[in-house]
Amino acid sequence: MPMTTTVGNPGSTTPEYERSPSRFTDRITADGRDGWPVEAGRYRLVVSRACPWASRAVIVRRLLGLEDAISLAVVDPLQDERSWRFTLDEGGRDPVLGIAFLGEAYAAREPGYDGGISVPAIVDVPSGKLVTNDYPRITLDFETEWTALHRDGAPDLYPEPLRDEIDEVMDAVYRDVNNGVYLAGFAKSQRAYERAYRRVFERLDLLSERLADRRYLVGDTITEADVRLFTTLVRFDAVYHGHFKCNRNKLAEDPVLWAYARDLFQTPGFGDTVDFDHIKRHYHQVHTDINPTQIVPLGPDLSSWSTPHHREELGGRPFGDGTPPGPPAAGEEVPPEGRAA
Amino acid sequence: MPMTTTVGNPGSTTPEYERSPSRFTDRITADGRDGWPVEAGRYRLVVSRACPWASRAVIVRRLLGLEDAISLAVVDPLQDERSWRFTLDEGGRDPVLGIAFLGEAYAAREPGYDGGISVPAIVDVPSGKLVTNDYPRITLDFETEWTALHRDGAPDLYPEPLRDEIDEVMDAVYRDVNNGVYLAGFAKSQRAYERAYRRVFERLDLLSERLADRRYLVGDTITEADVRLFTTLVRFDAVYHGHFKCNRNKLAEDPVLWAYARDLFQTPGFGDTVDFDHIKRHYHQVHTDINPTQIVPLGPDLSSWSTPHHREELGGRPFGDGTPPGPPAAGEEVPPEGRAA
Repeated sequence: MPMTTTVGNPGSTTPEYERSPSRFTDRITADGRDGWPVEAGRYRLVVSRACPWASRAVIVRRLLGLEDAISLAVVDPLQDERSWRFTLDEGGRDPVLGIAFLGEAYAAREPGYDGGISVPAIVDVPSGKLVTNDYPRITLDFETEWTALHRDGAPDLYPEPLRDEIDEVMDAVYRDVNNGVYLAGFAKSQRAYERAYRRVFERLDLLSERLADRRYLVGDTITEADVRLFTTLVRFDAVYHGHFKCNRNKLAEDPVLWAYARDLFQTPGFGDTVDFDHIKRHYHQVHTDINPTQIVPLGPDLSSWSTPHHREELGGRPFGDGTPPGPPAAGEEVPPEGRAA
Repeated sequence: MPMTTTVGNPGSTTPEYERSPSRFTDRITADGRDGWPVEAGRYRLVVSRACPWASRAVIVRRLLGLEDAISLAVVDPLQDERSWRFTLDEGGRDPVLGIAFLGEAYAAREPGYDGGISVPAIVDVPSGKLVTNDYPRITLDFETEWTALHRDGAPDLYPEPLRDEIDEVMDAVYRDVNNGVYLAGFAKSQRAYERAYRRVFERLDLLSERLADRRYLVGDTITEADVRLFTTLVRFDAVYHGHFKCNRNKLAEDPVLWAYARDLFQTPGFGDTVDFDHIKRHYHQVHTDINPTQIVPLGPDLSSWSTPHHREELGGRPFGDGTPPGPPAAGEEVPPEGRAA
């Protein structure tokens, strides 16, 4: 389960870090077959801007214009022993759900629950119950089940004719990149670390090759596959390179991937959701088993995220037949201290 | 005192890491005024190839051709609770001094000694006593007191007319760079870390500016100042960038300093003394208070150390009226696993 307290403080003694399975896999669908129909204003998306798995949902929600359909709660990047907290909100409580800890929504769903508390989480506002924390499904359902509530001009991030290819790319990206950096960073042995490190860079090399002459991973428009690769790339130099020891090279030293990542970063809906302050503080201050001093590195220099990438020369139609989203909704802007420049 | 056990495991509770003073400051001089005359074959230089302070002495000894005059002992890059060990040698003992731990030479000098054990150390072979561990003086004395034993064509690394300027540059380099990276890496508070980090990069920026149109730091030849800057730069991306959180940018991202460092690296006497394996294992496995997993990063890619630097276009005469040293003496080559490519 991504970004659970367990992930933050892996207590496992297995030599290779393992991600615990998601626990709550109900789906919110157009037909409401799991008891949770798509409905504007009914649900609340709880995220940490530090978390790559939650950030997928933040980006997709922006790209599809679901801001009015499903509201957003942002937790403190630093969990305590009770896990994710609403300490950024007035009085330390989420203004919509009225709870201080995300765990309260888990307990409302399953009394006595004592498993991991993870983001992203979607909570049913009327009952206060967690509906799902099934991060790989959440974005796909935003794309395919919430269509009635998409904005005008919303792109198709999971186009039907390309789904097999998108799924295949995403599987490899998940295994070797999204999760690969965690396998490296939380490795309990030199051998497990080295295996993970090699997988990360072998895959990044293949992706770099793939993206050398095409603007996006699949087709000629932005898809869910790009969202999922982006959320790891945007954290790469700030945390995975040093903190997780994925240091063969920085992202900024791979001309193709660096340009690709900046292209997406500068696309409305991507970079405007990224809070580097939350990212850096979360990883470096929560993982005391790999950074016991909890000192947060001042680097890297982030101003280069806004430099020209020239990827438009490769063609491609970022939003296909759609249009870019407008600026972030009022109250959802990333604070200045979290921005790249 | 550089690379003492104390440095490896700083136990200090002061907010800013402080280097303990050198303890043994006797000098080996041409006139023997401290009781230690320059004499071929009498002394043994004990170093760790991991240690930047000891590496100065290794480089200067090579450049001046003192290999036959003073022999070299290389300790294991990993200290144990008794500090530096001769575990790389057959039977775990230095073949010349016959001791298993460098601390034995300290105890021979001062019975009951219980202070830090540091490299570089010069030991008097007949008595087995430590003569000096005064690292800033050792290289200067090699240059100015051991002249009778220099090779033909040895360069003047501390030319008299330039000493004021060399000293001034070295002072700043010591304070902000050589020691600055340690202040950042061993900082006990975010504030102390940030202060050190800023000093490191402010100074590196000034040095980068200084070196943009001149090949060497002072004059137009290699001097002691270049040796002292080099030993930190060559460790920068491999350990200081990640392990010590000096991560505004990699050395490889500063075109001037990166070319300057490669120029020296490719100069006989510099790169051929560098053991990246010793460097990486020492820092990452000894400093358990900042890297408790003791996992040694596989990166960075070191092959780029041998790429063209084009600094010869700036002119300069690396060895002045002298000549480059020959290849490393037999038995003193860096093993393949420690080399950059």
